[in-house]
Amino acid sequence: MDFDVIVRNGTVVTASDIWECCDIGIKDGTITAVGPRLIAAAGVQEIDAEGAYVTPGGVDTHVHLSQLDGLIPDLPNYVADTYDTGTRSAVAGGTTTVITFASQMKKDESLVPVIEEYHKLAKGQSYCDYAFHVIVTNPTEHIVEHDFPKMVEEYGITSVKLYMTYKPMKLRDYQILDVMYSARKLGITTMVHAENADIIDWMTEHLEKKLMTNPHHHGTSRPPIVESEATNRVISLAELMDTPILLVHVSSGHATKHIRDAQTRLLPIYGETCPQYLFLLADSMRKGDFEGAKCVCSPPLRENKVDQDAIWAGIKNGTFTTFSSDHAPTKWAHPNGKQRGLQHGNLPYGKFRYIPNGLPGVETRLPLLFSGGVLSGRITPQKFVEVTATNPAKLYGLKKKGAIGPGFDADLTIWYPQEMFEPFKLTNEMLHHAIDYTPFEGIEFKNWPRYTIIRGKVVFSHGQVVGQMGYGQFIRRGKSLLPGPRDVWLSEWRP
Amino acid sequence: MDFDVIVRNGTVVTASDIWECCDIGIKDGTITAVGPRLIAAAGVQEIDAEGAYVTPGGVDTHVHLSQLDGLIPDLPNYVADTYDTGTRSAVAGGTTTVITFASQMKKDESLVPVIEEYHKLAKGQSYCDYAFHVIVTNPTEHIVEHDFPKMVEEYGITSVKLYMTYKPMKLRDYQILDVMYSARKLGITTMVHAENADIIDWMTEHLEKKLMTNPHHHGTSRPPIVESEATNRVISLAELMDTPILLVHVSSGHATKHIRDAQTRLLPIYGETCPQYLFLLADSMRKGDFEGAKCVCSPPLRENKVDQDAIWAGIKNGTFTTFSSDHAPTKWAHPNGKQRGLQHGNLPYGKFRYIPNGLPGVETRLPLLFSGGVLSGRITPQKFVEVTATNPAKLYGLKKKGAIGPGFDADLTIWYPQEMFEPFKLTNEMLHHAIDYTPFEGIEFKNWPRYTIIRGKVVFSHGQVVGQMGYGQFIRRGKSLLPGPRDVWLSEWRP
Amino acid sequence: MDFDVIVRNGTVVTASDIWECCDIGIKDGTITAVGPRLIAAAGVQEIDAEGAYVTPGGVDTHVHLSQLDGLIPDLPNYVADTYDTGTRSAVAGGTTTVITFASQMKKDESLVPVIEEYHKLAKGQSYCDYAFHVIVTNPTEHIVEHDFPKMVEEYGITSVKLYMTYKPMKLRDYQILDVMYSARKLGITTMVHAENADIIDWMTEHLEKKLMTNPHHHGTSRPPIVESEATNRVISLAELMDTPILLVHVSSGHATKHIRDAQTRLLPIYGETCPQYLFLLADSMRKGDFEGAKCVCSPPLRENKVDQDAIWAGIKNGTFTTFSSDHAPTKWAHPNGKQRGLQHGNLPYGKFRYIPNGLPGVETRLPLLFSGGVLSGRITPQKFVEVTATNPAKLYGLKKKGAIGPGFDADLTIWYPQEMFEPFKLTNEMLHHAIDYTPFEGIEFKNWPRYTIIRGKVVFSHGQVVGQMGYGQFIRRGKSLLPGPRDVWLSEWRP
Amino acid sequence: MDFDVIVRNGTVVTASDIWECCDIGIKDGTITAVGPRLIAAAGVQEIDAEGAYVTPGGVDTHVHLSQLDGLIPDLPNYVADTYDTGTRSAVAGGTTTVITFASQMKKDESLVPVIEEYHKLAKGQSYCDYAFHVIVTNPTEHIVEHDFPKMVEEYGITSVKLYMTYKPMKLRDYQILDVMYSARKLGITTMVHAENADIIDWMTEHLEKKLMTNPHHHGTSRPPIVESEATNRVISLAELMDTPILLVHVSSGHATKHIRDAQTRLLPIYGETCPQYLFLLADSMRKGDFEGAKCVCSPPLRENKVDQDAIWAGIKNGTFTTFSSDHAPTKWAHPNGKQRGLQHGNLPYGKFRYIPNGLPGVETRLPLLFSGGVLSGRITPQKFVEVTATNPAKLYGLKKKGAIGPGFDADLTIWYPQEMFEPFKLTNEMLHHAIDYTPFEGIEFKNWPRYTIIRGKVVFSHGQVVGQMGYGQFIRRGKSLLPGPRDVWLSEWRP
Repeated sequence: MDFDVIVRNGTVVTASDIWECCDIGIKDGTITAVGPRLIAAAGVQEIDAEGAYVTPGGVDTHVHLSQLDGLIPDLPNYVADTYDTGTRSAVAGGTTTVITFASQMKKDESLVPVIEEYHKLAKGQSYCDYAFHVIVTNPTEHIVEHDFPKMVEEYGITSVKLYMTYKPMKLRDYQILDVMYSARKLGITTMVHAENADIIDWMTEHLEKKLMTNPHHHGTSRPPIVESEATNRVISLAELMDTPILLVHVSSGHATKHIRDAQTRLLPIYGETCPQYLFLLADSMRKGDFEGAKCVCSPPLRENKVDQDAIWAGIKNGTFTTFSSDHAPTKWAHPNGKQRGLQHGNLPYGKFRYIPNGLPGVETRLPLLFSGGVLSGRITPQKFVEVTATNPAKLYGLKKKGAIGPGFDADLTIWYPQEMFEPFKLTNEMLHHAIDYTPFEGIEFKNWPRYTIIRGKVVFSHGQVVGQMGYGQFIRRGKSLLPGPRDVWLSEWRP
Repeated sequence: MDFDVIVRNGTVVTASDIWECCDIGIKDGTITAVGPRLIAAAGVQEIDAEGAYVTPGGVDTHVHLSQLDGLIPDLPNYVADTYDTGTRSAVAGGTTTVITFASQMKKDESLVPVIEEYHKLAKGQSYCDYAFHVIVTNPTEHIVEHDFPKMVEEYGITSVKLYMTYKPMKLRDYQILDVMYSARKLGITTMVHAENADIIDWMTEHLEKKLMTNPHHHGTSRPPIVESEATNRVISLAELMDTPILLVHVSSGHATKHIRDAQTRLLPIYGETCPQYLFLLADSMRKGDFEGAKCVCSPPLRENKVDQDAIWAGIKNGTFTTFSSDHAPTKWAHPNGKQRGLQHGNLPYGKFRYIPNGLPGVETRLPLLFSGGVLSGRITPQKFVEVTATNPAKLYGLKKKGAIGPGFDADLTIWYPQEMFEPFKLTNEMLHHAIDYTPFEGIEFKNWPRYTIIRGKVVFSHGQVVGQMGYGQFIRRGKSLLPGPRDVWLSEWRP
Repeated sequence: MDFDVIVRNGTVVTASDIWECCDIGIKDGTITAVGPRLIAAAGVQEIDAEGAYVTPGGVDTHVHLSQLDGLIPDLPNYVADTYDTGTRSAVAGGTTTVITFASQMKKDESLVPVIEEYHKLAKGQSYCDYAFHVIVTNPTEHIVEHDFPKMVEEYGITSVKLYMTYKPMKLRDYQILDVMYSARKLGITTMVHAENADIIDWMTEHLEKKLMTNPHHHGTSRPPIVESEATNRVISLAELMDTPILLVHVSSGHATKHIRDAQTRLLPIYGETCPQYLFLLADSMRKGDFEGAKCVCSPPLRENKVDQDAIWAGIKNGTFTTFSSDHAPTKWAHPNGKQRGLQHGNLPYGKFRYIPNGLPGVETRLPLLFSGGVLSGRITPQKFVEVTATNPAKLYGLKKKGAIGPGFDADLTIWYPQEMFEPFKLTNEMLHHAIDYTPFEGIEFKNWPRYTIIRGKVVFSHGQVVGQMGYGQFIRRGKSLLPGPRDVWLSEWRP
Repeated sequence: MDFDVIVRNGTVVTASDIWECCDIGIKDGTITAVGPRLIAAAGVQEIDAEGAYVTPGGVDTHVHLSQLDGLIPDLPNYVADTYDTGTRSAVAGGTTTVITFASQMKKDESLVPVIEEYHKLAKGQSYCDYAFHVIVTNPTEHIVEHDFPKMVEEYGITSVKLYMTYKPMKLRDYQILDVMYSARKLGITTMVHAENADIIDWMTEHLEKKLMTNPHHHGTSRPPIVESEATNRVISLAELMDTPILLVHVSSGHATKHIRDAQTRLLPIYGETCPQYLFLLADSMRKGDFEGAKCVCSPPLRENKVDQDAIWAGIKNGTFTTFSSDHAPTKWAHPNGKQRGLQHGNLPYGKFRYIPNGLPGVETRLPLLFSGGVLSGRITPQKFVEVTATNPAKLYGLKKKGAIGPGFDADLTIWYPQEMFEPFKLTNEMLHHAIDYTPFEGIEFKNWPRYTIIRGKVVFSHGQVVGQMGYGQFIRRGKSLLPGPRDVWLSEWRP
């Protein structure tokens, strides 16, 4: 057996096990052996991981890059990270695969040109491997009956994302059922942004009447019940349709409880949460000089540590299947010279309604959870691997990603031996995205990826991105490997 | 002290207590004394109640009469009972006050002409006292800000009803919030028909594609999750707005649980159920020759005894505040010569979509619960009084109704001494409504009101309606006497 | 109709209704008429209640008087209030009936002499009517099979109390089943003090090892889980035996939830709470100079307002059937010259283990809830009546007590018209018990009973006890009037 | 790199991943490489696993062998399987490590001689690796303070088992707290048999009075509430003490819910279930000719499929950490010539009280779950590995057991390629234990271990035990690798 690369003596972690002092042998981009003291033929590249954790390369399944749509009508092109900057940032944070979004922008548009368009945007631009989810904003009969099968079979895209809020994107329950009905037949996983659009609109308008438009009132407009109502609703729709869904970016305890209860009953309901809900609170939206706008995302950061604790608990007890960045890269200083949302309204403090929702975070996702979760003793290394790599890969049918073991792609994140690492506080300059801030500014990191390896090739090493733009490949995906429909029905109707 | 009427020696029941061998002295339509051996001046009318229960006259707060709207566009005027036949039927079943609906038919219409129109329909036509709820199908700014206060102050109408389903009536969540916002300020109680419209539409269309259009597939199209989702949603809206609501005609265990949980947390959430959910199951919709159409109501009769048991439990443990008929009087044989829903579709068994929803029941409500609840030992006489009279009166601000005691209107239902009564099986001919069937055909009754007394006057006696059309008065109502807003808010926003 | 006494123009409250400007006519100690403007024959005593609430005389069903037993082996006769002082205190607080305890002191003793002994203690000594519960500390076969029937039939005692803790009293689960088995057959209501004895013992010993023996560590030794575990356990036993029980003096949210959940399922589980859990917190046990010992009771006052709020919620949502004082009258300054518990241990701050558990409160019970509940707007007057009089009377089969209405005993509490009353802060000197402190010292009262009337006779008026010792009668009781066994069994076994 | 053994081309399963066509290289009993096409030096033993699942050798952590105690006083030595027959049976079913029990028989006995005694019984007798739990029937101060540390440090025993029922074994809550207190400090995992002893005793006696003593009344005497009460109680104790526990052999839905709820709150509560609760129902106890006695275990097989479904759900949703046999090998035909329990009582059908509790199952555990779980599509292969090997090893600190990966002991179960296997129905003759029946008689198996390998050595092959008695080694264990105490306290007390 010969290898191209051998990673030596790492503490190798899978979602269930840890192998001490273990080598990883790589041939043609694939892991072909794990075990101690693998024999190196001449010319093999050897990478030292002694005393360090080696985890599967991060699989970030919620990344917005180069999106042409705009959540807010008069703020087009808000997504500042393109495939080059976004994936450069990803590898610099230990992530080796991203799933980004191809978004149906025009309501009357078929999905095929949408997918083709995003292929053009990504092709030759990516530092890491990538796949697409498709955002469906108008699930016409043509789309669900014709485009969906094509998407799965020809394009290898096995997941769609729906919004229950945001005017340009939101689907009515009826439309969600249309999507679910088709998704079930085709084995598509449906991702749902669950917030009640009507409540948000109503609250936003009534807050504006009272001039409560400061950035932190973004949070006022969307209390946790906004999320928990929509979460319960879409779980109900999914139970009716017997279809697997993932609730994206869950932020609060009540929504978490709905998901947990569904899982207890074995409904195929999956949950995702994000770093911001583990490490930030609503106070961040109260910073002066419109700085609070840097922490406006949806669902919003929560007021209450009780919610934050519930999210941590959801990570630990298994409610959250995946941990994603929801990298939503809008600059704070908008091209037209104003900060996000500040140019609107005649008010000195702007209107939160016009602040693009979302935070950058593709680079910080793994180090935050590794430092604040594993090294703080809150979670085990295996749990880290499960939610950052293994489960995301399984849920979205990335068959060769997300795990360390024979036959898997040699996508690895090698951390520093703890004693070699000097803790530091993050500043935005350290990051590789195209965004002018990070919401995690000032947080202390106790480790960071030393090497990022994609299909056997080092793409990030000791703080430097050493991979090539375009090295990243588009990955065709299969169906979810996690439990699917139960074939349990709530009335005499069957699909 | 002199009396016009004395009811002698009854077993008088209030919502909390029972007074054995107790007389009730009545003067000018009001109860002026209760106690044994009241002294009768000459000329006093004495009514013998010895050995019999005397309960407050029934207050049926969910009765559709003379409605001009139509749930189904091409089936106008489906409501066959007008104020005369409907209230005649009410008093024949021991009910002394009904609250009927004045319904906003045109979306651009103010409520004032609506109320005036219904006053015209009712005036001089009613055998029993009556009041109005207003059905709001389009809560414009004008309506919630101008008509609502007028409705409360000038017309003495302190409740509105909203639909979350039915195309011509349904409100979006945003509109529900508009109503709640105004309702809270004015002390209005909001009644909500909670079913998820989109699911119903989706299921109905997909069932029709499979030719599953038999009457009983009305139930297939609306499994319990349709109700429980909407119930949870509207409770969420009410919690956000801190507004009291009543969930009308609750039919299933899961919806009941949502209400119970809200009550446990002291939210001002009230629940109503109806006789059909206690005494009928979905099998009734499976009767041949389109007979099943006679039992089509929404929410539908449930398949499962588990749901029926949950409704009984909700009566017993206090989850259900009120027990109403939801008298919705459509004839089975439609004027144009076809049965309800049968003339639609080219199918031999019609389409359930065109069957008007709702059952007649204003006359059978009290006897069903008395016979099947009190006499069967399932509930106490006090509980019977609580849910059929006292709570309905309190919830809707009928200050002088719903109880036996000094100062209350002398509205009484006197039952037969049990040993005097010969049980019988109901046939529709025995009833006084204008409808050509009863869904409770064949059910055995172990008692029935012997006398119905309204403001001291006997209007029904030994099977005969002896009151006069037009004796019934319109009752101006005050605000709810049950616990209202808690002044607890979910974010920094305050109304 | 002639009367001995007429109470004029009160705002008369029952558990369900309010009658404004209503007279109450009394003849031979019984209410014989209610209504406005009752005609007074010559010589009738007329009592003015204009502008004032009139509520049923308080029924305090948890009062320890003259008990010969001792919870703590070397502190015998700790109960300082005897029937004279205790009932004098009761009537001074608007209470007209107390149920006290006849306690089996010797393990081998039959209940008959116990009951006779307490009859001797009470006879001719009581200012108010009274009845007995029997405390069973050793339910031998003789007791449950022979004494129980005799107790019910000959002595009119239809309730027993069990302890799950306190060394001299506690029963094992097996013994509790023995009691329940017999209680079910005889229609006895079983009261249970639910705390886990083993946890308390273990914690107490381990706290003493650490010299954590200050009064407030009484609370440390009995965190809420001690109560909630035992509550769940005894509810399980009751479900198995299908027997009604009352959980006495519930103090915490988790125990309340167990009771609520059982009630949701229609198990005949009843709950009682006490003023101390609504108005005091654990801080009271931290007062210096051993003053904290004045607030040592079991279950202990809780640390957390969350628990207190849960108890208030339980009052409002109906979880608590009754509201009792648990008057447990031990003097702070013990006869032997030391304060409660201080004489034990060589420690300057005594040992909480030796502080008698329990607080005096028979006199303050009604005014606390009236002032802090009704007048603060937290509860309705009807709810006040329900939990202080009507439900306690129903639960324990006091057929003529607890309500205002024809046929009931004329036991009344007449309050001051609000405008006549000057709020004051309580001091112990104002009270009529034989105890040297009140835990409610310093609390402001916004009203107080103006008259207490028992069977038509004024026994307390404007701050003076005007009744006679010995006027109070022993009341033979019937079976509970609240829902009993469901006849639902958990296995093939039937009693 | 050279190997002693190479397993070729298996479908290798870990608790998280599957490696297709993967070799496993073994050297000196340890796995030293996994990967495709490992190079075989001369003389290497190659084992073909092509087309077959390879799973970690089963770790059965609940096995009773050679126990000297007796649950029933006059039925000593009921455990018929000794270390030789029991472990021979284990390896024949794919199990490579068992944890058996060393049981404190005399109440005044130190644990040290107990452990020594069991070492003598096991030494040189075992076909597979083994470790001990210690059953503590009297946790004296000496034991918890002196023996426990010694047990952990000198003997490598890091778990104890407690009984809440069975007269000779049961501990009071106080004693359980003593054990937990010490266990927490030492990192011991406490296993608990949770059933309420008093209820069982009471029911048993009352059933006997009614001559309800048939075997199936064993189930009547222990309805699910017996288990759920005790489960809630011991979870409460564990929460108070902040100590990890495992609830053994959970059988019912309500107990499962208690465990799930605790896990949701992150309490370190673990659950175990057994094959009998997944594959058998109470009907098995109703077989004639006293055959029902063959299925008497505690907790009993449940009447209701609802409970069985809840157990399956608990496996799938992660509530159950481990899946063990609870191999409790009593012969049906007792040495004295009578069947289990039949010789007692004068009744023709014996007394269930005297039937030894427990079923044999160490050999059938893995095949039942593989065939009925994995091959039926109910669970994934990874879940199978998790509950039969990986989690049991982690929970009990078997660091080198329970997983396939570099550094782990080469303990493997190789199954048949599905197409090679002819399904069969089990008869007891096929099994290798010393027991005269199997409760799983007649169940169809769709696969069975083809090879069992312990530390690189084949001990079972194609139906034949080929390993040697005495090859099995005693394994010293470390502390649990699953999450432990949370350091959350319920009052001011700290250990």
